[in-house]
Amino acid sequence: MMGAVAKPTIGIIGTGAIGGFYGVMLARAGFDVHFLLRSEFCAVAENGLQVNSAPHGSLTLNPVQAYSNAQDMPPCDWLLVGAKTTSNADLAPAILRAAAPNAKVLLLQNGLDVEDSLRELLPDSLHLLGGLCYICVHREGPGVVTHQALGAVHVGYHSGPADESTRTAIVEEGVGLFRSAGIDSQAMANLHQARWQKLVWNIPYNGLSVLLGASTTPLMADADSGEMVKALMAEVVQGAIACGHDVPPGYAEHLFMMTEKMPAYWPSMYHDFLHKRPLELQAIYARPLAAAKAAGCEMPRVEALYRSLRFIDRRNA
Amino acid sequence: MMGAVAKPTIGIIGTGAIGGFYGVMLARAGFDVHFLLRSEFCAVAENGLQVNSAPHGSLTLNPVQAYSNAQDMPPCDWLLVGAKTTSNADLAPAILRAAAPNAKVLLLQNGLDVEDSLRELLPDSLHLLGGLCYICVHREGPGVVTHQALGAVHVGYHSGPADESTRTAIVEEGVGLFRSAGIDSQAMANLHQARWQKLVWNIPYNGLSVLLGASTTPLMADADSGEMVKALMAEVVQGAIACGHDVPPGYAEHLFMMTEKMPAYWPSMYHDFLHKRPLELQAIYARPLAAAKAAGCEMPRVEALYRSLRFIDRRNA
Repeated sequence: MMGAVAKPTIGIIGTGAIGGFYGVMLARAGFDVHFLLRSEFCAVAENGLQVNSAPHGSLTLNPVQAYSNAQDMPPCDWLLVGAKTTSNADLAPAILRAAAPNAKVLLLQNGLDVEDSLRELLPDSLHLLGGLCYICVHREGPGVVTHQALGAVHVGYHSGPADESTRTAIVEEGVGLFRSAGIDSQAMANLHQARWQKLVWNIPYNGLSVLLGASTTPLMADADSGEMVKALMAEVVQGAIACGHDVPPGYAEHLFMMTEKMPAYWPSMYHDFLHKRPLELQAIYARPLAAAKAAGCEMPRVEALYRSLRFIDRRNA
Repeated sequence: MMGAVAKPTIGIIGTGAIGGFYGVMLARAGFDVHFLLRSEFCAVAENGLQVNSAPHGSLTLNPVQAYSNAQDMPPCDWLLVGAKTTSNADLAPAILRAAAPNAKVLLLQNGLDVEDSLRELLPDSLHLLGGLCYICVHREGPGVVTHQALGAVHVGYHSGPADESTRTAIVEEGVGLFRSAGIDSQAMANLHQARWQKLVWNIPYNGLSVLLGASTTPLMADADSGEMVKALMAEVVQGAIACGHDVPPGYAEHLFMMTEKMPAYWPSMYHDFLHKRPLELQAIYARPLAAAKAAGCEMPRVEALYRSLRFIDRRNA
């Protein structure tokens, strides 16, 4: 007799805005979700997780299966990593402890090659995937997340023991998790390409929000910052193409128009700046610049923005 | 019997840091100097002008021949304009009232084509000249100027009734005024070229001081901002060459090394930003960008800096 397929056990590593939002959505859809927390453990263990979502309303998860130590977590089939790329290598011990055999580790992070520093610290038996989150979300306070708009996750396979057809099945399983929680999701055949495409948004908006102290609304309303966004996007598209990737025609224009319709949004890099956390400059700027340069493509405006941000980041430390 | 050549009467239009410093130096050298003031008239009429100069010591001029209205000034042979380029057209009435017949009007200002908006408002009988000031000076308070270092003035003829040889004589006369006040000065055969050369300094440092909130010292100490300065300088040199001008080999490197030896200096644009005055973006960025573009030369980093500054300037208004 065939039983129903058991729902996978899901672990959230880094319960900030991204981990908190997707974790709560999955838990509310009936998944067995376990949250690893550090500074916010006590607040969440006591008060639960709260997502104030413009599209979904006020969502509360209480009690929360919260952990301050990965050793206490059950073996997880899926681990969703919402921590900053700046700490990826440091997460390996927690991931190793929380991972079931053959677990799938999905990095919900922006930037290029964010999997690499983690990959070399994981056993070959673990699958590593990347997820690009098209979402306006930020952490409002301990255990409280504000979700302003959007939410889609694009999932691609990075590396691991799977053969080609198993990779496809694993990515589809990940996509299925999100979809069954009411979240738009799609499979990306080429993760590296998907990361480049996401950079077309992150490179202009993340950096300019810090450099000019502005959310998306004034950046889009002002003719000069709008032109700068377009010029930066065009450079990233050229960089992606130089690195051998496809960017659909009109892709940058589509992102630009999507952003015009968004609520006033402060990208994650601005929040990092505000709270004096290190900016994710390696993943979002340095690696794309180096990859494009190696492919013979200069991105002078991106480089100027990167250098400005490095200066700001050092002073902010 | 030949008398001694009479010393020219000098008028200072706009007694800020530049007008105040050069006016005081000329007055102390025995010239008959008359200062037109607006908001600072009462303070200067009462307390005089004070220049706290690192190289020259504490210099006081008291009493000052100070005026709140150009109609009260005597006819001046030389008019030194130290006001902001953003107000040039508005200065024409005051210049007309204070100018002796065939007076020489010397704009001590940075940027390209700053004479044009004023030229069309002046009669053909007036000589118009430009002066580039290589100096670290700022206004400390009403009638008080701090002079940190340097001081040279490069003088060139812009337009007026003089033929070629008379132009040379007039420029030499201007150079002579400064030199007899102990100020390094030299004649520039090509004013437009001299203005481009000065922009190799002003474009990077003025803008980056505002964008990154930093004086020359941290900008030079940080590897990224240092590289950005070099890249911006290289673009301006290419723009100047595209517009048909000479830039001596090693010129940008010379300015870079000169700045490394300078005290921590906040360029004038930073002071304008701090006091919510309009930034001199037309003269220092928009016109050079347009001129280079018309000559087929893109300056992408300069343009990105300009667009950032426009955004900042609008928000600062």
